[in-house]
Order: sequence, then structure tokens, then C-alpha cells
Amino acid sequence: MHDVSYGPVTADCFSDDERAAVYKAIYTRRDVRDQFLPRAVPEDVLMRLLDAAHHAPSVGFMQPWNFIIIRDEARKVEIHRAFSRANEEAKSLFSDERQALYASLKLEGILKAPINLCITCDRTRGGKVVLGRTHNPQMDLYSTVCAVQNLWLAARAEGIAVGWVSIYHDQDMRRILGIPGHVEIIAYLCIGYVDELYDTPELERRGWRNRLQLEELIFEEAWQGTAEISSDLPRPGPAGVLPAIPSTSD
Amino acid sequence: MHDVSYGPVTADCFSDDERAAVYKAIYTRRDVRDQFLPRAVPEDVLMRLLDAAHHAPSVGFMQPWNFIIIRDEARKVEIHRAFSRANEEAKSLFSDERQALYASLKLEGILKAPINLCITCDRTRGGKVVLGRTHNPQMDLYSTVCAVQNLWLAARAEGIAVGWVSIYHDQDMRRILGIPGHVEIIAYLCIGYVDELYDTPELERRGWRNRLQLEELIFEEAWQGTAEISSDLPRPGPAGVLPAIPSTSD
Repeated sequence: MHDVSYGPVTADCFSDDERAAVYKAIYTRRDVRDQFLPRAVPEDVLMRLLDAAHHAPSVGFMQPWNFIIIRDEARKVEIHRAFSRANEEAKSLFSDERQALYASLKLEGILKAPINLCITCDRTRGGKVVLGRTHNPQMDLYSTVCAVQNLWLAARAEGIAVGWVSIYHDQDMRRILGIPGHVEIIAYLCIGYVDELYDTPELERRGWRNRLQLEELIFEEAWQGTAEISSDLPRPGPAGVLPAIPSTSD
Repeated sequence: MHDVSYGPVTADCFSDDERAAVYKAIYTRRDVRDQFLPRAVPEDVLMRLLDAAHHAPSVGFMQPWNFIIIRDEARKVEIHRAFSRANEEAKSLFSDERQALYASLKLEGILKAPINLCITCDRTRGGKVVLGRTHNPQMDLYSTVCAVQNLWLAARAEGIAVGWVSIYHDQDMRRILGIPGHVEIIAYLCIGYVDELYDTPELERRGWRNRLQLEELIFEEAWQGTAEISSDLPRPGPAGVLPAIPSTSD
């Protein structure tokens, strides 16, 4: 549905301004929870976001995604209830000193955001044998995640904020949205306008966890971290190569 | 490492030109296989791509990714061998009339691309309990896919082409790159310059599969396709709502 024709596409580098715009979307994109305004998202803007998602790469050109748009208040309330139940369970999994911080974090904008969007992956689309999925059965799920990220970056450019809600029982969401077994729920997104965005991720601002150093995440030619972890306790970080990663999430 | 400061970030819509640049990256991005040029990718460009990936959203700000850069010819040859073996198996899975077309498709640029990049997900980073992953254990994998898509779009803006190779046995890649069990391989990418990009996906050009209509993929309030599939044969498409989706992939 996009109306710009790019014609035969050269592979040239974008102009400096264009390149800067792409990086601006990448660096200023935020996961938004509590700040949604009631202002409606225009239909043409929403369609541009969905079209951006639809132009994600997909394994075997499978395009396994569907987009379920939720605006109904009663349905949002039901989904919010499913979130709250799961979030209580989640809270109890953290250690005492982390629980208070966890409880203070707002982790969704289900009721505030004018648009909720569930993005799904139909595992059966295109038949049983899909080019490129033959040896990695997760590839269609990953294609759908690429669609989420396309949408998220397009949304940033449109001045629209997005938050990804992942704390719910899969069975609850399936029931509420009537999603059949052959379809996987990939993302539940809250979408709307906000007044401003944080300049760093909210979990970093709130002291939950720090940005890692990129240089420490890059290896040459082969894996250079620890070969094994010996327990499922928070690991202190691979010896020698990576510095200790602060285990702040539990 | 990015040197642009965005300061406190308003959530405003980008300028028309900036917005167009983001959509240009999204719509002109291609999965490239055979067209890589030997021209080297400058180190600063590669680092910008990795930094773009590192600024993807991640569950609980976990940043579970690592980046393994492969340039060594002997290692590429070994990986190409693993691909070839899997690709022979894959070909045999398609019906007779599809096999010839499948065999004619070039599905990777492992040896031609100057840079190969393996992007992984360390499932143990940040400990056992990760905020946002408590009810969906796949969330860290999905975060890593978001990093892939960030890199891919940044690469388009930099005039760099990317191809995602998914046809190999996981165990082969683990052995060749020394990847331990607690780390998941998410993507194996071929990266380099090309002279031009196709204006539509190669699988569409080659008649493998068609672009679906976006409008048919959008539902309001709840799933509106079939409730169940009765067999694992290629499905004809949900009755009534979605039109039949051409089952061209097997």
C-alpha cells in the first residue's frame, strides 16, 4: 500500500541526512509503558505502521504474520486482568530487595494506549515445508519479530510510541483473542501518542540494569566466552573475556 | 558508541524527509544472496551496524546478544560445507516440480560476502529470572531478532547488503564456531557491498511466492480466521475471511 515508488533500487549509501534519520529512529526508539495520551491514532498512520511491518523479511517469503487490532474497552480490561495476574506471579520470583523496585515499575499501557495490537505467526502458512525453515523451525517466529521491529521504528518516525507487553499467560491471551493452536502469539503491543520519550531505556534510568559495553559483546571468528555454565545461578560473567555482567535482574 | 546526542527526546513525528528515509530503509531492504562484491566493509561502518543492533529493545534490558565476526576463509569454507549438506536435504523435501526451482535459487553468500556475522542469544545473561521473560521464555530470543532487524535497516542506510542464512544444522554451526549450550544461535548473516538491489524480494521475482495483501492480514478485536486446521497438509486458507493463500512453498 505504500505509494512511493523506489524503482530499480541502487544499493548506494543513503545521503547523510537520510542515514542520520534511520539512526535517529534506532537510537531514540523507546519501550513505552505509562505515558500514553488518549489522543487517537489516525487510521492512515496505523495502516502505514502495519504496512512497514508487512515489509519485514520473512523466511521463504512466508509472511506468516497477522495483526489483531484491539480498541474495545471491555477486551482491554480483560487483557489487563490477565497481565495483572501474571505480574503478581512474576513479582514473587524476584528476591526481596528487587521486589520493591519491580513493584514500582509500570510495565504496560494496556488501558491507556488507544490501540493495542497483537502480532501473531501462523505456523501453517505456505504449507508444511517452507524454504529456509527446513533446518530451523523457529525461523517463521523470527520473521514475525522482524515485523514487530519494522513497525516500532516506523512508529518512532511517525511520532507514535510503542510498548511490548510480555507478562501474561499464553493461554489467557489465546482465549481472550480466540487464537487457534496453529498460530503463535509473538507480540502484544500498546500503541499511541506520548508527550516525550526518555533519552535512555526506562529500566536503565530506574537502576534495574545497565547498558553493556558493545566492545565486550563482539568476538572474532569464534565464541570466546565460557564454554559452559556450571549452575543456573546468575553467572559472574565469562572468565577472562567478558567482564562480569551485573546480575541485577534477580 | 554513537556520537550523536539526541538530548531529552521529544516524541514528535520526524520531519517529512526523515520519515521518508526511515520508510526508504524499510521498503528497499532486501535479503541478498549472490551479489556480494569483494570490496571490504570498513571497520567503522561495521561498528556502526553492530551498535545499531546493540540498541535494539531487549526484555528486562537483558541485551542477550553477542556478535561473532567471521572473516577467515577456511572457516567460511567449513560453514559453506555445512550449508551445502543441509541444503541438499532441504531440496529433497520439496515436490518434484518445486525441486528444480529450489535448486536454481542461490540461498547464501557465505564465501562471497567479506563479512559473515553470527548473532547469538545468551540465555543465562542477567540470571535465571529476567523481567518480562517470566511468562514467555522466548522473549530473549525475540530481543535478539530485533537486533538483527536494526542491523539490517542500518546496513541499508549505509549501502551495505545483508543476507540471512538459515539452512544448516544447529549442531554444525555450534561446532564450527565453538558455541556453548547455554547460547542460542539466532542468525547467520552475510554482509557486504553489492552493485544493486532488486526492487522486490527475490523469491517473489523468481515466482516462488507472492506478496500477500496487507488488508487480508488485519483482524479487528479477535482472530477471524479458521479455528483449527484439520491436517498438516498445506491449508487452503481460512474459510470466509482470508482468501486462499497460494501454497507455493511445497
